[in-house]
Amino acid sequence: MKIALLGTGTVGRMLGAALAGQGHEVTLGTRDPAGPLAWVGADAMESPPISEWFTAHPGIGLARFARAAEATELVVNATNGAASLTVPARTGTGNLAGKVLLDIANPLDFSHGMPPSLTVCNRDSLGEQIHRAYPAAKVVKSLNTMSAALMMNPGLVAGGEHSVFVSGNDAEAKKTVTALLTDLGHTDVIDLGDITTARTSEMLLPIWLRLWGALGTPLLNFKIVR
Amino acid sequence: MKIALLGTGTVGRMLGAALAGQGHEVTLGTRDPAGPLAWVGADAMESPPISEWFTAHPGIGLARFARAAEATELVVNATNGAASLTVPARTGTGNLAGKVLLDIANPLDFSHGMPPSLTVCNRDSLGEQIHRAYPAAKVVKSLNTMSAALMMNPGLVAGGEHSVFVSGNDAEAKKTVTALLTDLGHTDVIDLGDITTARTSEMLLPIWLRLWGALGTPLLNFKIVR
Repeated sequence: MKIALLGTGTVGRMLGAALAGQGHEVTLGTRDPAGPLAWVGADAMESPPISEWFTAHPGIGLARFARAAEATELVVNATNGAASLTVPARTGTGNLAGKVLLDIANPLDFSHGMPPSLTVCNRDSLGEQIHRAYPAAKVVKSLNTMSAALMMNPGLVAGGEHSVFVSGNDAEAKKTVTALLTDLGHTDVIDLGDITTARTSEMLLPIWLRLWGALGTPLLNFKIVR
Repeated sequence: MKIALLGTGTVGRMLGAALAGQGHEVTLGTRDPAGPLAWVGADAMESPPISEWFTAHPGIGLARFARAAEATELVVNATNGAASLTVPARTGTGNLAGKVLLDIANPLDFSHGMPPSLTVCNRDSLGEQIHRAYPAAKVVKSLNTMSAALMMNPGLVAGGEHSVFVSGNDAEAKKTVTALLTDLGHTDVIDLGDITTARTSEMLLPIWLRLWGALGTPLLNFKIVR
């Protein structure tokens, strides 16, 4: 499947590499490809420069948002929450029409100090905002409830015995995402319901952040026992 | 230990019976003891009349809020979220001073339709509101993230292999609550931190409600794998 990942941050790159490893044709979307490639300093996460990463992943493309999303079947929103409403706009609504738009971002609000709160929650969510802003796309919320490492390698914790959620109004789009998740090794994909349930998975972030603090590791996840 | 449970609803009665079964001296607090005892109709949960319940549980007392909380070591707020700020006031701040006040309620908001949203979240919580309203009490938030049946019988699901959270500013009070939880069979008690972390466990309720819908049973819980 041809997949565009919007965002060249840690999450976009890690998920891009994992999906390319599954045989998908992956292009990372960015505002200006010259930007990340020219940037040689280590980033805040102390990753190597992005140009080195692309050298190490020769099969993965880098293009402007709109170019990356052209002729793809699936577009992944892997930007940070603050950019999540503007980046699909840069991608061009025509390039999103009829496609699965997998939103893995969280509306984290750092303006009130640490740990972050949410910019939207309770009776709305980032997933719903994106759904309303791009009605021609088939928005599915998923993967936003775990660290990037676990998204693509669930076996890192508890032998992969934990849960991942999907929310969205389009049953076929949720099927596409569920198949992708299963290929990545996720064994318990729970369909929460329509896109309004995105607010409930986004509201897991505050306790996820506190659990990271309490347990001393981001390698943790929610397993829904029943 | 002498324990007062504020509230004679399903949660208060089930938890009261379990704590009495552990050897604690339990009194349920209510506005007017004549009220629940006189009420002979089945309630909304189709439980038998409360008078029958007290006949079946002869060791458990029923008294006005203030009388129930007198001379106890632990007071449990098992009222519904809407009443949770006024009931401790009826109990009398003197009867709460220096005591552990275990808050197991959730600020569910039914005014916007079903499923309920929260009356407070993100940068505040019911636990924090109670903490601010009764500064002389040692408020601990816990048990609010599961059904009443699981609170007192964690083994009902996954052999008891799931998690329960505690939040509060008083380390000794959290120790008291943790011991109580352990006695009830909870094997993974996670201390999230101070009372501000109550907002994060209360924010689990929206997904808990959706999971009930998606999975078709309230006998579910969060296990934090790491």
